[in-house]
Amino acid sequence: MSIRVGIVGISGFGGGEAMRLVAGHPSFELVYAAGEGSAGSRLVDRFPGVPARLADLVIEKWDPAALPRLDVLFASLPTGASAEALARVPQDVKIVDIGGDHRYVDGWTYGLADVWPDEIKGRSRIANPGCFPAAVLTALAPLLADGLIEPGNIVIDAKTGISGAGRGGADSRFGYAESNENLVPYGLLKHTHMPEMASTIGRLSGGSAAGLVFTPHLVPMTRGVLATIYGRGRATTDQCLEAARRFYDGRAFVRVTDRPPQTKWATGSNLAFVSYAADPERNLVIAMGVVDNLGKGAAGQAVQNANLICGLPETAGLDGAPVWP
Amino acid sequence: MSIRVGIVGISGFGGGEAMRLVAGHPSFELVYAAGEGSAGSRLVDRFPGVPARLADLVIEKWDPAALPRLDVLFASLPTGASAEALARVPQDVKIVDIGGDHRYVDGWTYGLADVWPDEIKGRSRIANPGCFPAAVLTALAPLLADGLIEPGNIVIDAKTGISGAGRGGADSRFGYAESNENLVPYGLLKHTHMPEMASTIGRLSGGSAAGLVFTPHLVPMTRGVLATIYGRGRATTDQCLEAARRFYDGRAFVRVTDRPPQTKWATGSNLAFVSYAADPERNLVIAMGVVDNLGKGAAGQAVQNANLICGLPETAGLDGAPVWP
Amino acid sequence: MSIRVGIVGISGFGGGEAMRLVAGHPSFELVYAAGEGSAGSRLVDRFPGVPARLADLVIEKWDPAALPRLDVLFASLPTGASAEALARVPQDVKIVDIGGDHRYVDGWTYGLADVWPDEIKGRSRIANPGCFPAAVLTALAPLLADGLIEPGNIVIDAKTGISGAGRGGADSRFGYAESNENLVPYGLLKHTHMPEMASTIGRLSGGSAAGLVFTPHLVPMTRGVLATIYGRGRATTDQCLEAARRFYDGRAFVRVTDRPPQTKWATGSNLAFVSYAADPERNLVIAMGVVDNLGKGAAGQAVQNANLICGLPETAGLDGAPVWP
Amino acid sequence: MSIRVGIVGISGFGGGEAMRLVAGHPSFELVYAAGEGSAGSRLVDRFPGVPARLADLVIEKWDPAALPRLDVLFASLPTGASAEALARVPQDVKIVDIGGDHRYVDGWTYGLADVWPDEIKGRSRIANPGCFPAAVLTALAPLLADGLIEPGNIVIDAKTGISGAGRGGADSRFGYAESNENLVPYGLLKHTHMPEMASTIGRLSGGSAAGLVFTPHLVPMTRGVLATIYGRGRATTDQCLEAARRFYDGRAFVRVTDRPPQTKWATGSNLAFVSYAADPERNLVIAMGVVDNLGKGAAGQAVQNANLICGLPETAGLDGAPVWP
Repeated sequence: MSIRVGIVGISGFGGGEAMRLVAGHPSFELVYAAGEGSAGSRLVDRFPGVPARLADLVIEKWDPAALPRLDVLFASLPTGASAEALARVPQDVKIVDIGGDHRYVDGWTYGLADVWPDEIKGRSRIANPGCFPAAVLTALAPLLADGLIEPGNIVIDAKTGISGAGRGGADSRFGYAESNENLVPYGLLKHTHMPEMASTIGRLSGGSAAGLVFTPHLVPMTRGVLATIYGRGRATTDQCLEAARRFYDGRAFVRVTDRPPQTKWATGSNLAFVSYAADPERNLVIAMGVVDNLGKGAAGQAVQNANLICGLPETAGLDGAPVWP
Repeated sequence: MSIRVGIVGISGFGGGEAMRLVAGHPSFELVYAAGEGSAGSRLVDRFPGVPARLADLVIEKWDPAALPRLDVLFASLPTGASAEALARVPQDVKIVDIGGDHRYVDGWTYGLADVWPDEIKGRSRIANPGCFPAAVLTALAPLLADGLIEPGNIVIDAKTGISGAGRGGADSRFGYAESNENLVPYGLLKHTHMPEMASTIGRLSGGSAAGLVFTPHLVPMTRGVLATIYGRGRATTDQCLEAARRFYDGRAFVRVTDRPPQTKWATGSNLAFVSYAADPERNLVIAMGVVDNLGKGAAGQAVQNANLICGLPETAGLDGAPVWP
Repeated sequence: MSIRVGIVGISGFGGGEAMRLVAGHPSFELVYAAGEGSAGSRLVDRFPGVPARLADLVIEKWDPAALPRLDVLFASLPTGASAEALARVPQDVKIVDIGGDHRYVDGWTYGLADVWPDEIKGRSRIANPGCFPAAVLTALAPLLADGLIEPGNIVIDAKTGISGAGRGGADSRFGYAESNENLVPYGLLKHTHMPEMASTIGRLSGGSAAGLVFTPHLVPMTRGVLATIYGRGRATTDQCLEAARRFYDGRAFVRVTDRPPQTKWATGSNLAFVSYAADPERNLVIAMGVVDNLGKGAAGQAVQNANLICGLPETAGLDGAPVWP
Repeated sequence: MSIRVGIVGISGFGGGEAMRLVAGHPSFELVYAAGEGSAGSRLVDRFPGVPARLADLVIEKWDPAALPRLDVLFASLPTGASAEALARVPQDVKIVDIGGDHRYVDGWTYGLADVWPDEIKGRSRIANPGCFPAAVLTALAPLLADGLIEPGNIVIDAKTGISGAGRGGADSRFGYAESNENLVPYGLLKHTHMPEMASTIGRLSGGSAAGLVFTPHLVPMTRGVLATIYGRGRATTDQCLEAARRFYDGRAFVRVTDRPPQTKWATGSNLAFVSYAADPERNLVIAMGVVDNLGKGAAGQAVQNANLICGLPETAGLDGAPVWP
């Protein structure tokens, strides 16, 4: 029997990727789509390549009081836009919030699915990790769990493709002409994503992430996140790799690689790639994490979380290999 | 029971896409991979995101005399490299040649799968259309079949992403620094792809394509082909659209759109998009065709052809929605 | 003695390029800059790399009644925005309108500077050609002048980088994520740029351009225009090249090349490249024209026009070689 | 009287940019060009937009024993290729080596022109800094000089456009299809560029750069280097900015900005942009440096060095504003 799925924010980038994944999912049936600017359009008007059986689904104006019968709702709304509305969704509808409003909020489970899958099973309110935290925390988790990196002294140099700014973020700064051939650091010493990362680092290590430094950069590409993370520790490269292989043993979506991972390895998939380079004599550990910001960094992990809360195989609908080149 | 599949030329772009599609196919099992430079590597060394069950498959040196038991072989070799070797493949192995050596060659069926599916069923030697012809012919077929465009007076202005030049084509002209921010017309009045297109136009129309003009351009993007085609005819835009909707009625992979199609609509899929704009007073018909050069233009159509010759549903393994953005 | 220059619309792409060229011009002194959103900023706030002597120039709100003493005013405003305001600029201020409002308007001279320089000298109101017409007409002029192509039967397949959509055009369609890896035909059988091209073709040929077909495409690159033009004629390739070499003999900015021109050849310069391929047996002439849409297609040609109307050497401030790669 | 200039390695990216700058230089005359693959071609065959007066200059096979009379020679050869050959250039020919063979080599002056211009004046053998060091050292110099950052504890996360890999580096990894939409860390804990940076940090600080960490990344863009540098110090952001403003007071090419610098700010120019963000409570200083890897990172700084050794104004031929967008 198929699971009835809705997507809110479907004409954004995260919502669009959720649509693609739900459309290819063996157990999900998309029965509800809502958007803001796109309300009233058919799905095929927004996504000309949508499977034919979904082409004529009409995008609704988002109204939590007017939902059809749903089993799962994916919400992909701008930060600040989902908290109040999602509170009005009936309790028997399971929600995965791809947006940022419910991370580390009471009553919601933080859906870092490759690290804590058992905590997610059976829940009905999941806050999906942000795209930067997805890359960062997947790379750090094994080191923190084994005490191979000091939690209080971590520098994260993070890079994202421009879809990470969202589709609404279409001021001329994100226009092609100004973004192409441009690399832009931003938000230095600011705190977006920081509480989420610091809290999770604390949980993983049992220590404090007080010294966390996080510098994001916009890279002229559509998709992809790479975090290059510098920390203190006395482990060797091999010990770090070994710790990660052990930590993710049997997990489907995290690949531990000898080589530094490249963003294109993950494009279009729910995979995360992690690697390490360490120099114990210099008390240095470098961790690297790569995800597709719309895959593991948004809709891919959301579907993984939905699989877990629905009791489905974790990989259902997520086993496509990355698109290359 | 799964169908045993091999891929030759797996480390090229077409072969890599064939690998991705075969890996996600419900009835295909990849049991043989061969390459030139990559022989001796494991699949995961070349494709870090390959599904885990295929990771350790070792890429062989291509040798038609040393094949394992295979049901289907996909060949994606440079033009000129496949004719002799494929002749030595046992007759009971079905072959889809993605390369150019067997198009309109005796004993091989031209695999324009959306137009002539019934001719392909049951055959064992299929020559896959080139990426430009895939876009051009899919757009032109309905007009030619209905006599809405003169076959002898067609101008094709074609544009391709740079993966169309192949992975071997990595001289500095195709390097990022020189290709980025550059748009390059080439091969003016030359004849690559011309006999294939002229022959097919002839078959579709019953007339001669003697006046065919074809100008390809390299566009700074990885994937995608758009053909903008100018011809003579007295039909209206609506008549052209209607002819195409009728021609492709019930066909899974061709979408007829009111709007001019964009290459990104097809990325990562086996879809083709066609549209038309006509001005009967000026005796003018413009046809547009869009494909992903590695999808419908190569590996996607190859899998579609393999489905047809194996008696599988035509859409098996090909129903993924395009990747956007 | 330096010539006092103003630029209106300075924070757009055309205005920004005009600023760059004026800043490097041996006889021009930028004394006035006006913008809409940027009013009140200093030039360095908008252009961090502006020469130090101009850094503190404050961008004014555009008001034709409050101009300082100026010799030349460059206007780079969206279509429809300049007609009324420029009418209120004092007569003794020479104007080059980079925007579209004054092309083929009474009292304004059409500034196709490489073709009709003598008509421009001494005038005070110049309408700069559009970026597509700059590429198209530069390529066609020699053929039309010598009767080597029929004026009434011309098909123009034109491609532009995305800065051609303007900086104001920053809706999500022009955002990086949606524009990258996308090739977009638009405006089929519509008439923007058509009257300008048809009128000029008529002037150049003495005939009618009634059958003109023009299809623009957005290409994922920032700068560059290529027009691939298909026409009827009985000349050979060599005769076309020879006609162009004769036509542009002694002219500084038009390069006639044997090879098909690439957009990157012109980046950052005021150059135009033209080439031809013809097949007299098929009554076929292909003409190609390349410009930088912000150079010869906008600000470069504007400065060239300003040089002509000010009695300066035509190449003053315009002799920089293109930026490569 | 003009200064007679030669360029070796002219068909590479650094050599090509040197050609562009020399062609626009008021005192330099290009009289000799040498290349490897391009020997025998005219300059216009390689650079279709070269100024007409240089079009017919024939590219020679590089032979230090067969030079014409030269005042200055720019050498832009792959690492390892210049040491021996440049030793055979007559002593009265001044040399600026853009390549890496003579950095911190006896008899050669390290040409960090914005920092130590007086050491360069009057010399005849200049080793141009590498592109990464140009960005890194320009950002760090003021902090090191004032003791605002610990020299022994510096982490450099560096990003470069793909032209930084050189034109010879055209294997498929640098091909458009594989580089586009890809972000690639490489050379972790390796030592290219490290001795150059460590030595200079030592000179600037009087201390040891023993703990230096340097991680380069390839970014999908043609030009541009950004270094994001993490260090230890107790200064505030304002103190860092103030130190840099003082350090570079009166210097033409270094811009100290409040905002984090973007690579596009420098494109096509010899400018460097530096900025800082510091948190004294966390003992944290972040320094950022941006250059065009072919400008200040190669040919721009080379021309600046040549100006200094020839007794010309430092900015001669280098005052063009950056190309935007």
